[in-house]
Amino acid sequence: MTAPGRLTLPIETGLDDQLVGLLERLGADAVRNSDGTELPAIVGELAAKVYATYFVGRGDQEWADAHPSELTRSYLMSERTPALADGDLEIPLMAGWYALQVTPDLGCDVDRWWQVIDRTTGETLPPGTWRVSGEGADTVVTVTGAVAGHVYTVDFLAVQTWDPTQMYNYITNDWADDPSRIRESPFDVRHPATWEHVRSSLDGWLGDHPEVDVVRFTTFFYHFTLVFGPDAKERFVDWFGYSASVSVEAMEQFEEHLGYALTAEDFVDEGYYNSSFRVPTRAFRDWIDFQHRFVTDRVRQLVDAVHASGKEAMMFLGDNWIGTEPYGTLFASTGIDAVVGSVGSGATCRMISDIPGVRYTEGRLLPYFFPDVFHPGGDPVTEANASWLQARRAIVRSPLDRIGYGGYLSLALEHPDFVDRMEQIADEFRAIHDRGEGRRPASAPFRVAILNAWGRLRSWQTHMVAHALWYRQAYSYLGVLEALAGLPFEVDFLSFDDIRDGVPDGVGVLINAGALGTSFSGGSAWGAPRVQAAVRSFVAAGGGLVGVGDPTAHIDGGVTFQLADVLGVDRELGWGLSTNRPFDTVERHFITADLGAGLDVGEGTPDIVAFTRDVEVLAAGRGTVQAAASHYGEGRGVYLAGLPYSHENARLLHRALYWAAGRDSAFGEWIADDPRVEVAHYPESGQFVVLNNTDEHVRTTVRGGGDDWVVELDPYGHAWVETRELRR
Amino acid sequence: MTAPGRLTLPIETGLDDQLVGLLERLGADAVRNSDGTELPAIVGELAAKVYATYFVGRGDQEWADAHPSELTRSYLMSERTPALADGDLEIPLMAGWYALQVTPDLGCDVDRWWQVIDRTTGETLPPGTWRVSGEGADTVVTVTGAVAGHVYTVDFLAVQTWDPTQMYNYITNDWADDPSRIRESPFDVRHPATWEHVRSSLDGWLGDHPEVDVVRFTTFFYHFTLVFGPDAKERFVDWFGYSASVSVEAMEQFEEHLGYALTAEDFVDEGYYNSSFRVPTRAFRDWIDFQHRFVTDRVRQLVDAVHASGKEAMMFLGDNWIGTEPYGTLFASTGIDAVVGSVGSGATCRMISDIPGVRYTEGRLLPYFFPDVFHPGGDPVTEANASWLQARRAIVRSPLDRIGYGGYLSLALEHPDFVDRMEQIADEFRAIHDRGEGRRPASAPFRVAILNAWGRLRSWQTHMVAHALWYRQAYSYLGVLEALAGLPFEVDFLSFDDIRDGVPDGVGVLINAGALGTSFSGGSAWGAPRVQAAVRSFVAAGGGLVGVGDPTAHIDGGVTFQLADVLGVDRELGWGLSTNRPFDTVERHFITADLGAGLDVGEGTPDIVAFTRDVEVLAAGRGTVQAAASHYGEGRGVYLAGLPYSHENARLLHRALYWAAGRDSAFGEWIADDPRVEVAHYPESGQFVVLNNTDEHVRTTVRGGGDDWVVELDPYGHAWVETRELRR
Ligand SMILES: [Mg+2]
Ligand SMILES: [Mg+2]
Ligand SMILES: [Mg+2]
Repeated sequence: MTAPGRLTLPIETGLDDQLVGLLERLGADAVRNSDGTELPAIVGELAAKVYATYFVGRGDQEWADAHPSELTRSYLMSERTPALADGDLEIPLMAGWYALQVTPDLGCDVDRWWQVIDRTTGETLPPGTWRVSGEGADTVVTVTGAVAGHVYTVDFLAVQTWDPTQMYNYITNDWADDPSRIRESPFDVRHPATWEHVRSSLDGWLGDHPEVDVVRFTTFFYHFTLVFGPDAKERFVDWFGYSASVSVEAMEQFEEHLGYALTAEDFVDEGYYNSSFRVPTRAFRDWIDFQHRFVTDRVRQLVDAVHASGKEAMMFLGDNWIGTEPYGTLFASTGIDAVVGSVGSGATCRMISDIPGVRYTEGRLLPYFFPDVFHPGGDPVTEANASWLQARRAIVRSPLDRIGYGGYLSLALEHPDFVDRMEQIADEFRAIHDRGEGRRPASAPFRVAILNAWGRLRSWQTHMVAHALWYRQAYSYLGVLEALAGLPFEVDFLSFDDIRDGVPDGVGVLINAGALGTSFSGGSAWGAPRVQAAVRSFVAAGGGLVGVGDPTAHIDGGVTFQLADVLGVDRELGWGLSTNRPFDTVERHFITADLGAGLDVGEGTPDIVAFTRDVEVLAAGRGTVQAAASHYGEGRGVYLAGLPYSHENARLLHRALYWAAGRDSAFGEWIADDPRVEVAHYPESGQFVVLNNTDEHVRTTVRGGGDDWVVELDPYGHAWVETRELRR
Repeated sequence: MTAPGRLTLPIETGLDDQLVGLLERLGADAVRNSDGTELPAIVGELAAKVYATYFVGRGDQEWADAHPSELTRSYLMSERTPALADGDLEIPLMAGWYALQVTPDLGCDVDRWWQVIDRTTGETLPPGTWRVSGEGADTVVTVTGAVAGHVYTVDFLAVQTWDPTQMYNYITNDWADDPSRIRESPFDVRHPATWEHVRSSLDGWLGDHPEVDVVRFTTFFYHFTLVFGPDAKERFVDWFGYSASVSVEAMEQFEEHLGYALTAEDFVDEGYYNSSFRVPTRAFRDWIDFQHRFVTDRVRQLVDAVHASGKEAMMFLGDNWIGTEPYGTLFASTGIDAVVGSVGSGATCRMISDIPGVRYTEGRLLPYFFPDVFHPGGDPVTEANASWLQARRAIVRSPLDRIGYGGYLSLALEHPDFVDRMEQIADEFRAIHDRGEGRRPASAPFRVAILNAWGRLRSWQTHMVAHALWYRQAYSYLGVLEALAGLPFEVDFLSFDDIRDGVPDGVGVLINAGALGTSFSGGSAWGAPRVQAAVRSFVAAGGGLVGVGDPTAHIDGGVTFQLADVLGVDRELGWGLSTNRPFDTVERHFITADLGAGLDVGEGTPDIVAFTRDVEVLAAGRGTVQAAASHYGEGRGVYLAGLPYSHENARLLHRALYWAAGRDSAFGEWIADDPRVEVAHYPESGQFVVLNNTDEHVRTTVRGGGDDWVVELDPYGHAWVETRELRR
C-alpha cells in the first residue's frame, strides 16, 4: 500500500457533497481553482492544501485605464510593402494586426524607437524620410522617396491594449455577451508606480485569503509573444518570444547597463521576432539575460511576501513566463517553492521535473477537463492513457513530485470511467514514486549532451513551436528529445560556447539535431574553426557525434555539413550533382539490430550523400542516405535523417548512443528484448521496474547483471522485479 | 510524295550488297562511319554524301609521347583530409583519383599553381608550410603545422595521361586484351608545336580522303570534365566542365589579357569545379570567354582548311566541345557548316536546332545501334517511338534540317521491325519538313524568357547534369524546358545582367526555375536591388513572372524568395514556423483548367507558405502550397513547386504563361481540347499540323480562327489540316 497524496485536483462550487469522498478515493491532498472557477466555501474544511491562481500583470483594469503609459508594449512589423512606383509609399501599420489587441505607440519618440527599413537594400531609412499620420487602426507611415521595386517595412512599438490570453478566452467563450466581463489590458512592472501597485495588491490579497496555502502565480509579468491578425485569429505565436517584454524604459536601462543601444530591428528580426529556431543574436541573448535579472529580482520580492504570509509560492510554467526561464542562472534565486506545468509528453515532463533549485515539481496531466474532450460521447480515457504512457517513462527517469489535473471537475465527474482511470494513474504514480524513493534510476556510464545554440537555458525545450501542437517541420527532431526523456542517460544541454574550449568531461556523445540554419543544428556557429576543431578533437579522442537532420550544417568551404568527415555523409544542395557517390547499404548493424520493419525517419532529410569512403550506410531510400555510421580516429559518428518518436526509434537511439560512445559491447544490461518495454534499474535497492509502453499484453525477457527474467505485463502495465545484487 | 534525303545513316564494311537498297528505301542521302568502324570501300559509289569522323586532340600517341609537357592538364582537388592531431599532416593526392588517367603535374611551379587550403578557416597556406614528395600515384603533400580538428585540401594541376572517352571505350570493350589498342593521351593545341602539328595533320588527312564530303569533328580540343576514381569508375562528370581546359600557358595568357591572375581554387571551386549549378564566378565566366576566343579562333583555322579542300565542316556537340559553346558570341565566326548532336528529348533537340549561325543542324535520333538495345529480344522500336514523340514536337517548333542515326548498322538490320519504323520516321520527318517548309509555325504574341545566371550562353542547357541521365534533383525543373521545347512560344534565355536595366521589350513572361542557391534560380544574383527592382517593375507594369521550385531564392531580409511579394508564396526554412499562414485552395482556375487528376509537381519543393493576403492557392499537399497565382500591379505572378514533363504539365505551363502575361482571354486559338495533342499553326500557308503525342488512338477538337475541327489520329500519328484563312 502506498500512502495517499501527491495529487492536486481542480475543484469548483456546486460539488460540495461529492468533494470529500472524491478526494479520499483519489488520494488527493491538494485542491486548486481554475481560470474562471471559484474555490467553494467548503475548501477550508477539506483535508487538503489549497492552491489559488493569482495574476500579477493584469486583472486590475481600473489601474490599467488610469495608467495608459504603463501598459505593456510590444514590437511589431508592418506588412512588407512594395513600392510599385517612385515617390511616396504609404504603409498602413495595422493591416496585418488586430486593432483591439495592439495599437501603434504614438507617444514614444518614433524617430528613436521605430525603424523604417528598405528590405531590398537592407538599409534603415533616416528620420525625416518618412512620417507618421493617423492613429490606431488607421496609422500610416508614408515613406517619401521610395524607390520603385523596393520593399519597405516599419518596425513599430505598439501598446498592448488587450492581454492575449484573456482575449482568447473572451472571444472563445463569447464574453462579449456578458456585461460582467471586460477586456483586460496588461501593465508593466518595469514602471515603478505599477510595480508598487502590484506589490501592495499582493499583500492585500494574501491578507484576504487565509484559506490559501499555495499561491499559484499564473504567471508573472510578460506574456510570450501572441499577436492576432485583423481577423482576430492567431497570426504569430511564439511561446519563447520576448517581443511583448519591451518598453522604452527597459531599453534605456539596457543601454545603461550593457553599454550599447538596442534598435527596433533587434526585436523585429526581419519579421522572425527572434523565434527560438533563429540562431540568437548577441542583442537578443543580452535582452533575455537583462530581463531574467529584472524579472527574477521582482519575483523574489513577491515570493518573499508570500513566504512572509506563511504560504508557498508556485509558478505555472505557462502564459506570462517570459523572463523566468527556469533553466536560467537566476531562477533559483527567486525562492519559488514549486513549478507546475503541463506534461503532454515525455519531453515536456522532463522540462518540468528537471528544473533545478525548486523544492518540488508538479505535472499537470492531460487531458484538461474541458468540453473539447469531456463531452457526451467523448473519450477522455484514451487521451489519458496515451499521455500517461508518454509521461510515465519520463517520470520514472526524473521523478515529478506531484501530479495534478486542470479544468472543470464537474465535467470529469460525468465520465465515471475516466474517474476510475484517474484513480489508477494516481495510484500508479504514487507507487512508482514510493518504490523508486523519488530518485533517479541508474543510467549509462557516459553522459549525452545535446549541442545547440541555446544550451542549458532551453533544456528540454528544443524544436518546440506553439504549445503541444504538432508541426510537420518539428516532429522528426522532437523525437530525439522524446526518446531521451525516457532513456537511461544523463542528458546535458550544451551551447557552442560551452564546447569551444573542449567538450566537458563525462560527456560520451554529442547530439546535434535540427534543420539547416536553425539554432538547433547551429547554423553559423559551425563556421567557427574552434567549434569544428573542438568537436573533431572530441570524436577523434574517442567521443561520439550523433547527427540528426542537418547536423553541423553551415554551407561553406565545399560542404553543407561542416563535419561531413565525421558523420560520413553530406547534404547535396545541387552543386555537387556531378560527383558520383554510390553507396551500398550494410545488411546488419548494431545500431539497427532491433528494428523490425524499415527505419522511419519521419520527414527525413533530402539528398544525403555518402561523403567518406568508409562510411557504412545503414538505411537509405530513393537514393538518399537515411542512417549511417562512421569511425573517426578513436571515436565514431552516426547520422540519422530524422527520428520521430516511436518505441523502435527510442531503442535505435539507445543503441546509436552506445555505439557512438564506443560502448556497444556494454549494451544489453537492464534492457528488455522487446523495444516496446523499458527498464529502469535501481542498483542501490536491488530492483528494477519494467514499463509496458503499449496497450497490449506483453511478455519479454529482461537481461541484466548476468541474469535474465521473463516478465509479463498487462496493457499499460508496470512491474517491479527484485534482483539478487542488492547493494545496501 | 516528299523528296528523299535529310537522313544520315552509319555504315560499315561487310554490308556492301545491302547498302544501295537500304539507302534508297530509307531515302538516306548521307552516310558516316562511327567510332570504331571504317567506311567501306564501296562508299564512293553510293549516291550519298560521306561524313567521316575526325579527332583533333588525340589519336596520335607518337606525338603525345614525344611531347609530355604538351599533354592536356586538369585541376583536381585531393580528398578533404582532417588533421586528427597538431603537426605534420600527409595528404595523398591521388587517393580519390585513377592513377592511369591523371597524375600530379610535378613539372610546374607547384608553389604558384597548386594551392593548399585549410577548409576550416578558408585560408590558403603560404608556400613553405607544405611540401610535395613522391610522384604519380604516390604523390603526397605534407602540411607542416596542421591544426588538430582542421580539414585540409590540395588543389593540384594534373597531367591527363589518358583521354577519358577513349579510356571509357577501352575499359568497356576490354581493349586491354587487344594488342592493337593503346591508351591515348590528349594533347593541348595551346602549345604552338602541338597546334602546328594538329593543323598540318588535318591538311594531310584532307588530302588523303578525297571520298569524304563532310569532316565530322568529334569534337575539338578540350574534353568536358570526366575524371575517374581509384576504382576506374566515373567519379566526377560534368558535361559543362572546363577543369580539363587548363594549362600554365593558358593561365599566363589569361593574366596578360584580363589583367588579373587565376588561382587553382578558381577552377577547383571548393570541389564543385564550377558545375553549371553553381552561380558562376567572374573568374569562371572570364575563363569561359577566354577559352571561347581561343578555341573558336583555332577552329576557324581548321574549318578554313576543310573548306579549302572543298569539304564541309560539321561539329559533333559532344565530348570535346569545351570552348565551342554553340550559343557563345563567337561560335558563328568559326565558319562551321553544321552541328550534329544527339536528340533524346525535346530540350536536347532545341539545343541543336536553335543554334544560330550554322547552315544546317542534324539530330542524331535514339536509340544508338548498340548492343545494349539491339540484342536478340531487345525492343528498339519502343525506344525509338518514345524518343521520336519527344523530339517531334520540338522539331515542329524549330525544324532540324536533318536527322541521322549512330552505331552499328549491322545490328539494326537484325531488327527488321526497327528498320520499318526507321523508314516511317524518316518519311514523317521529311513530310513535316516539306509541308512546314522548314519554318517555324506561329507562336504566342509575347516572348517567354528563362532568367538564370547563364542566360543565352546555356540556351536549352539548363538543369542538365550528365548526358541523358535522369537525376532526381533535376527532372522537376527539366520539365519546364521540355514543355517549352514543343509549345508555341518564342523562348529567350536571359542572364541577370540582361535584365538589370529592365526586361527587354517583347518579353511577356519571365520564368525563374531551379533549386535554392543554384545558378538556375539565381542565388546571390537576387541579392542585387537592381535585379529585384527590375523584375518587380516589369511585373507591376503588366509582365508576368512564373517561378518554379525556389524562384528568386536568396535568404535575406526576412524572406527566402526575394520576390515573395510577387509570387504570393515563400519558402519556410524553419524560422517562421511561429507565423500562422493558413490558406484555402481555390476550386477552379484558368491555369489548372485542363488538369485531369491532381497536379504532379515531381519532387516538389517543401514548406511553401502563403505569403500575401491575396494569393490564390491552386494546389496544395501536406500543408504546403504546390501552385499559386497572384496579381501584382498590372501584372501577375505564378508559382509552381515543380513541373516534371507530362502532356498535362505542358498544357498547364502553356496556360500559366498566358495567364501570367495577362493574355488568358486570348488563349484557346490553335489548340486541341485534349492536352495529349499539340497543334502547330502556319497562318501564311493556311494550315495546321496536329501531333498525337501518345501511343493511343485519339479523337479531339482543334479550335482556331473562330472555327473548329474534329481530328482523329492514329497512335503516334500526325495530320495536316487546311484552314480557310490562307493568307497568301
Ligand atoms: Mg537584400
Ligand atoms: Mg569555414
Ligand atoms: Mg548523324
